[in-house]
Amino acid sequence: MTSTSELESIDTLVSRSLSDSDLEEFNRIYYGRKDKHSLAIKTENIEYAEKNNFEIAAYDFPAQKEECRSPRIVRVGIIQNSIATPTDKPINEQRQGIFNKIRNIIDTAAAEGVNIVCLQEAWGMPFFFCTREKLPWCEFAESATEGESVQFLKSLAVKHGMVIVSPILERDDAHGDTIWNTAIVIDECGKVIGKHRKNHIPRVGDFNESTYYLEGNSGHPVFGTKFGKIAINICYGRHHPLNWLMFGLNGAEIVFNPSATVSGLSEHLWGVEARNAAIANSYFTCAINRVGTEKFPNEFTSGDGKPAHKDFGHFYGSSYVTAPDGSRTPGLSRIKDGLLIAQLDLNLCRQIKDKWGFTMTQRLDLYANSLSTKNFDQMKMQQQKFGPNVSTRNMLP
Amino acid sequence: MTSTSELESIDTLVSRSLSDSDLEEFNRIYYGRKDKHSLAIKTENIEYAEKNNFEIAAYDFPAQKEECRSPRIVRVGIIQNSIATPTDKPINEQRQGIFNKIRNIIDTAAAEGVNIVCLQEAWGMPFFFCTREKLPWCEFAESATEGESVQFLKSLAVKHGMVIVSPILERDDAHGDTIWNTAIVIDECGKVIGKHRKNHIPRVGDFNESTYYLEGNSGHPVFGTKFGKIAINICYGRHHPLNWLMFGLNGAEIVFNPSATVSGLSEHLWGVEARNAAIANSYFTCAINRVGTEKFPNEFTSGDGKPAHKDFGHFYGSSYVTAPDGSRTPGLSRIKDGLLIAQLDLNLCRQIKDKWGFTMTQRLDLYANSLSTKNFDQMKMQQQKFGPNVSTRNMLP
Repeated sequence: MTSTSELESIDTLVSRSLSDSDLEEFNRIYYGRKDKHSLAIKTENIEYAEKNNFEIAAYDFPAQKEECRSPRIVRVGIIQNSIATPTDKPINEQRQGIFNKIRNIIDTAAAEGVNIVCLQEAWGMPFFFCTREKLPWCEFAESATEGESVQFLKSLAVKHGMVIVSPILERDDAHGDTIWNTAIVIDECGKVIGKHRKNHIPRVGDFNESTYYLEGNSGHPVFGTKFGKIAINICYGRHHPLNWLMFGLNGAEIVFNPSATVSGLSEHLWGVEARNAAIANSYFTCAINRVGTEKFPNEFTSGDGKPAHKDFGHFYGSSYVTAPDGSRTPGLSRIKDGLLIAQLDLNLCRQIKDKWGFTMTQRLDLYANSLSTKNFDQMKMQQQKFGPNVSTRNMLP
Repeated sequence: MTSTSELESIDTLVSRSLSDSDLEEFNRIYYGRKDKHSLAIKTENIEYAEKNNFEIAAYDFPAQKEECRSPRIVRVGIIQNSIATPTDKPINEQRQGIFNKIRNIIDTAAAEGVNIVCLQEAWGMPFFFCTREKLPWCEFAESATEGESVQFLKSLAVKHGMVIVSPILERDDAHGDTIWNTAIVIDECGKVIGKHRKNHIPRVGDFNESTYYLEGNSGHPVFGTKFGKIAINICYGRHHPLNWLMFGLNGAEIVFNPSATVSGLSEHLWGVEARNAAIANSYFTCAINRVGTEKFPNEFTSGDGKPAHKDFGHFYGSSYVTAPDGSRTPGLSRIKDGLLIAQLDLNLCRQIKDKWGFTMTQRLDLYANSLSTKNFDQMKMQQQKFGPNVSTRNMLP
């Protein structure tokens, strides 16, 4: 399911091409730290990952020592996966194939002491929205409390005492069988403590998601888990700074961005958006992208004038973590399943707020006023201030 | 005034280290296009730049052909400069030294057909806020309509039929001699058509700017010039996504970000924030940073526990332009004065809005409601929805 003609990653490309001193400068300017702060991984886990064909990498984000607060260390694990079987196999077989992979990876994460795992968007199915076909694909939708993947992950959460964030296709059978793009949060006791429904839905390229579900109605919840306050900004929501902002205002310390996006569309944006969100909101962000090329049974067109075809393009993986100070890890591979472990000291969030002062200086009252519907309507009728060619909103006298 | 022990740029570092095919992949993933779309520069202007010790570079951002709109091509020129004399020279001598450099660069921009020039933040003076001294530095402040640098640039605007955006230190003598950090816009007839006062003021490191001026009161004006609708997000405002957002909502097609920021503080953020703004708001952004190391007469401390010293650190230049599609130019040098010319087809803004749909899907009503002061206060008293550990705002039933 992975394409081997694709580049592994620009991180490895740069690492192997630059001299040591050049690489140090590159790392300082690009990643935000000269040294990548790799953490040691147990030999048996490295071997297990190799045998099971997934990448494993681990990085540290320490904070300064404080007198009045102890370090608040949490290990997060983000997982990117390709599908496991051809897409014309029975639903249950496709699903089970992916479950088997994910079990291996989550077990490995647990063996490395990971506390919170987050999976990619719609991890348990092919990303079939390119087809615009309803059956059999809608059969992947499931209950957010009792569905197949929910039960599968509940047992792993209990087994490992781990919080698991699972992006599923939710079937809300209590409310008209509506489908939602939803992330559920399972706590370390195996209880679903809440869910978030994707706030912003794409209509771009093959991302015909609004054929299946619409904008979420769950606001911007932040989940106070045993290991930290977390939120989920699903996929296309990463293009919307206000979406990121609200999770921050609601207290998130870590925001996961489970995604599915392809080369040729968004790859040059990938390193920018989740990273900018970490900087602007003084929290950790974890950007997770699906990996591999998925081929579908029937041909479809992509609204780009090109001939009908059967594959979505290449999901480029490249999952990475950014700290509130804007430093980031290298990305996982563009072509291979992977587990990226990041050890975070959550104290860094407040330390960076104190350092940079973005919260203190953000002037929310100004923007709340500017964005209100009332002002929007007024604006249209407003006399312009500095002359006929100047538009303005909330211009003070 | 420039430090030659500093790296020239990571762009040149990568270009000289990677093979052609690797560089193409790096460029595709990092810059958003395999080819940098360099534009030819006239030989006499290259020679003039070399003789006068500034870099010159030019890039193209074309758009697709449309049937009902002609291309709307504009050439912007962004200028980064070091100071020209030691900071203990008389104010007028310091200022005149910089004027002489800037005249050379603007004349060259005009000779390359540039329509809109933007200078860096506080371009006509050393960035003295590190000192916290009032005299002589406050003498650099000037009238936004009649000041020394305003008159200097008005004459260049008329000479070249060029719009010039000039970030100055404004002395508002009509209102209590207040000082503001202000960008003025001079049209191609030499008229000051408006101004914008910096919305967000830093209190970080040596950026003691709030010792001199406070948050601006001019909202988010967009200036409808002959060559396109432009706005200015001054320096620290680039850390605030809402600031960028409002300029976009008010109709900006190009947002300049005249800045002054130093290595060790923000360099790893520099390539992220203005670029993210271009993506999120489907407009062009032009990020401009001062260059060189500035030494002051008296020693000062930096609130970092280190001994008193006399220099601010290294302003790393690296000015660059990003298109609404997220592709960007390489940065100018980290160590040298420079002129970056970008030829923009402004039709690209609407084309990208149509492609990605960020405006259509941004749900401003939701966020206006979430950000309103009323909701903020309510939130504190609000019963939490999914259990005691879940915070939420605007959670629908």
